[in-house]
Amino acid sequence: MSDHMSPEEFRRHGKQVVDWIADYLAGIESYPVMSQVKPGEIRSALPSGPPERGEPFEAVLSDLGRILLPGITHWQHPGFFAYFPSNASGPAVLGDLLSSGLGVQGMLWVASPACTELETVVVDWLAELLDLPEHFRTNAKGGGVIQDSASSACLVALLAALHRASDGQVTSDGIKRRYTLYVSSQTHSSLEKAARIAGLGTSGVRVVDVDPRTLAMDPGHLRTLLAQDEAAGAVPAMVCATVGTTSTTAVDPVREIGEVCRERGLWLHVDAAYAGVAAVCPEFRWLNDGVAEYADSYSTDPHKWLLTNFDCAVLWTADRAPLLGALSILPEYLRNPATSAGSVVDYRNWQVPLGRRFRALKLWSVIRWYGAEGLRAHIRKGVGLAQELASWISADPGFEVHEPHPLGLVCFRPEWPGLAAAEADAATMRLLQLLNASGSVYMTHARIAGRVVLRLAIGGAATERRHVEQAWEQIRWELAALSTTLP
Amino acid sequence: MSDHMSPEEFRRHGKQVVDWIADYLAGIESYPVMSQVKPGEIRSALPSGPPERGEPFEAVLSDLGRILLPGITHWQHPGFFAYFPSNASGPAVLGDLLSSGLGVQGMLWVASPACTELETVVVDWLAELLDLPEHFRTNAKGGGVIQDSASSACLVALLAALHRASDGQVTSDGIKRRYTLYVSSQTHSSLEKAARIAGLGTSGVRVVDVDPRTLAMDPGHLRTLLAQDEAAGAVPAMVCATVGTTSTTAVDPVREIGEVCRERGLWLHVDAAYAGVAAVCPEFRWLNDGVAEYADSYSTDPHKWLLTNFDCAVLWTADRAPLLGALSILPEYLRNPATSAGSVVDYRNWQVPLGRRFRALKLWSVIRWYGAEGLRAHIRKGVGLAQELASWISADPGFEVHEPHPLGLVCFRPEWPGLAAAEADAATMRLLQLLNASGSVYMTHARIAGRVVLRLAIGGAATERRHVEQAWEQIRWELAALSTTLP
Repeated sequence: MSDHMSPEEFRRHGKQVVDWIADYLAGIESYPVMSQVKPGEIRSALPSGPPERGEPFEAVLSDLGRILLPGITHWQHPGFFAYFPSNASGPAVLGDLLSSGLGVQGMLWVASPACTELETVVVDWLAELLDLPEHFRTNAKGGGVIQDSASSACLVALLAALHRASDGQVTSDGIKRRYTLYVSSQTHSSLEKAARIAGLGTSGVRVVDVDPRTLAMDPGHLRTLLAQDEAAGAVPAMVCATVGTTSTTAVDPVREIGEVCRERGLWLHVDAAYAGVAAVCPEFRWLNDGVAEYADSYSTDPHKWLLTNFDCAVLWTADRAPLLGALSILPEYLRNPATSAGSVVDYRNWQVPLGRRFRALKLWSVIRWYGAEGLRAHIRKGVGLAQELASWISADPGFEVHEPHPLGLVCFRPEWPGLAAAEADAATMRLLQLLNASGSVYMTHARIAGRVVLRLAIGGAATERRHVEQAWEQIRWELAALSTTLP
Repeated sequence: MSDHMSPEEFRRHGKQVVDWIADYLAGIESYPVMSQVKPGEIRSALPSGPPERGEPFEAVLSDLGRILLPGITHWQHPGFFAYFPSNASGPAVLGDLLSSGLGVQGMLWVASPACTELETVVVDWLAELLDLPEHFRTNAKGGGVIQDSASSACLVALLAALHRASDGQVTSDGIKRRYTLYVSSQTHSSLEKAARIAGLGTSGVRVVDVDPRTLAMDPGHLRTLLAQDEAAGAVPAMVCATVGTTSTTAVDPVREIGEVCRERGLWLHVDAAYAGVAAVCPEFRWLNDGVAEYADSYSTDPHKWLLTNFDCAVLWTADRAPLLGALSILPEYLRNPATSAGSVVDYRNWQVPLGRRFRALKLWSVIRWYGAEGLRAHIRKGVGLAQELASWISADPGFEVHEPHPLGLVCFRPEWPGLAAAEADAATMRLLQLLNASGSVYMTHARIAGRVVLRLAIGGAATERRHVEQAWEQIRWELAALSTTLP
């Protein structure tokens, strides 16, 4: 087997793999959603060293099923309600397979022109689907680009913001002043990570208060903090507003935050990683109120809720010049006539790494297979199920639901009558462990105002009403059983 | 088509895609290696907006062949000699397909334990295959991790180096002093990019002289620069030594550089993006002389020369603590018992993004299909063909070959008798354009001591001796034809 796999062998083994995946997807409900293995269990079942001689491909498939599958937590399982959904879909997987099969690398336009140009087309299509402003399109001053994740999109936005705030000095001479980044306590941790990476450090991250009920950023406190920091000699570089926070899908008031930014010429990044794609539906476009007027950059993840397998995050900017200023370097070995003529987009200058996969193929495949109406139907189904679930929980006096819950995530907790807060939180965590150990569902938790809540995120392609009903029934059942064991 | 693709539909369309790819690979020589389209040509052939209604999957496949394929530069074509090879192979593509089909996201161990544990196993396997030191293994103080690219690996190494050089202060408070990074003129541009991203700026990058003949970094000049910079108040953070530079595969003297670093407790990163994987063969292990004793981190790209489709770069570190110190953040919504117990690896803390694909599957699939002996045979074949080519060029008085050329890359140029240097360089570029426009080969160029040379990198899985012979014949023929048009 140490020879290359011939096209005919690829044809044969490829069909075995397709069958394997089709069977896996058809039978996915037979697996426990959350893997039940212990740390080290998978590793110790694998050989400690590589094989000297090649093995038949069937050995890989066999070990996948026998050794690895018990260690898989099944993100495509209809009972997967943890984190946020990371949807894969048939057309996405096949688009990705075409990308792997072509095996091109799109760092430069000239390195495979279609890789760049299809990406330009699909990010413009997605901007249209989400009704994002005209200036985010590639024909205008802005433009979109596929990143691996919202984390990287936020980092790239911060680098562009620092470039602009320093008139290019951060790019040429590095961090010489105290630059600050504004987030809320609900902002994703990737913003703190971006601040560390970009040389601002954790102390460069300034945490704006949130409204205690909605958990949305308080623009008044943002203004106060900015004034304090500026008086202390800091240089504010960027504000990150979140549309749909990770813990509770809170929506920061982008318009009001944008006005504060506009007063100071401050970069506004809008992190809509999870929620942004909901704007395929006109009824959810309120989410992006203020984006057109105020956002310097905006990102959302088709790999979360828009049926495109990880990784596919899209970052748009209203003005690509600072981004290119921060990240463009042209060594001799990458010079070519098209780049020198300035007639093409080289996406390597829009991201951290140099190399890039042909990720546009999977997003293109998804948009074409579903069409706008199919994408809307998918989002509406997830929101509809979540709203139904929230209504059931609200109607049960044993539970408290966090409001608002405008999208596919519902946060809630048992009342635990008679238990003090710390005991109640421990009991909620115990309930979560029991639910996840059951194998039927996988949920995660968050803290709201210090109290533990269960997070149940709906949006998987395979999740139907019956799965949500079963989950709710199981939650009540496990709660009742657990309650009998409590004092 | 706006419904989800069912497992049975996936089975059917998946086999269509597998057939498409098998046919593509079987007929790849029928395409021009380098796409001949003009900027904008592909984009203008695609609809300007997304479809309202879903379309059959066959429409995607049809447009792929009809519209996109002319815009593809075929990296898997046997006449692809540009940049460095970015090998795809059957087992890699199928491993990647399995990753897409499972659709799991491995940010945390608990998010899919097998995704993390298989990665630990395969990076340890690869360390063994390359004879990297024991302390790079996960059971020791170090450990390996799959990154998207050598660019990201170098950035992560720099962040760890800054963390250590500042005793954690850069992570907590940001860049407050003048930190410097040491490279040579031959170091990859991603190091300058990393310095910009990390807040050192371009001016924080200090360029060490190279030996004019070998283009390897001069450790004596490194020592001089370090002393000067320290005297001027700078804090040296990292030295990057390259094993196999992009322009000419020059090999920096890692051992001597390491001794200079050791004197100062300075972080040594070894960027072996292209060449590192050659160490699967014992006869190329001299490349890594000094790595075991001196390297704090080391990276090489299976996605270049080791038959694993992009993206798959592996970063190892001798001590994971500074890396984790720089990049670990644990928000409430990611807390879980396994992470809290410290009993598992969470690779999100080893990289820039939070989310991660199950990339270990493709590397596992490649190592198992080929076995150590198959991987060695592949490397030896590429080097053997390159050495043969170099001998043919050397024997031709019309050409000059850059020495040394120990691996799969040969740099050379026509003598252009009678032409001044600038004219000769323009003529070499013209020759390159004619060769690339022919459709049979794709090569790039570099500059050595100011003079343009052609780079011909061999290592594609499909490249056989006859393709190298044809390329050489064509080079001579095009040169002869071009020479008649010159004064």
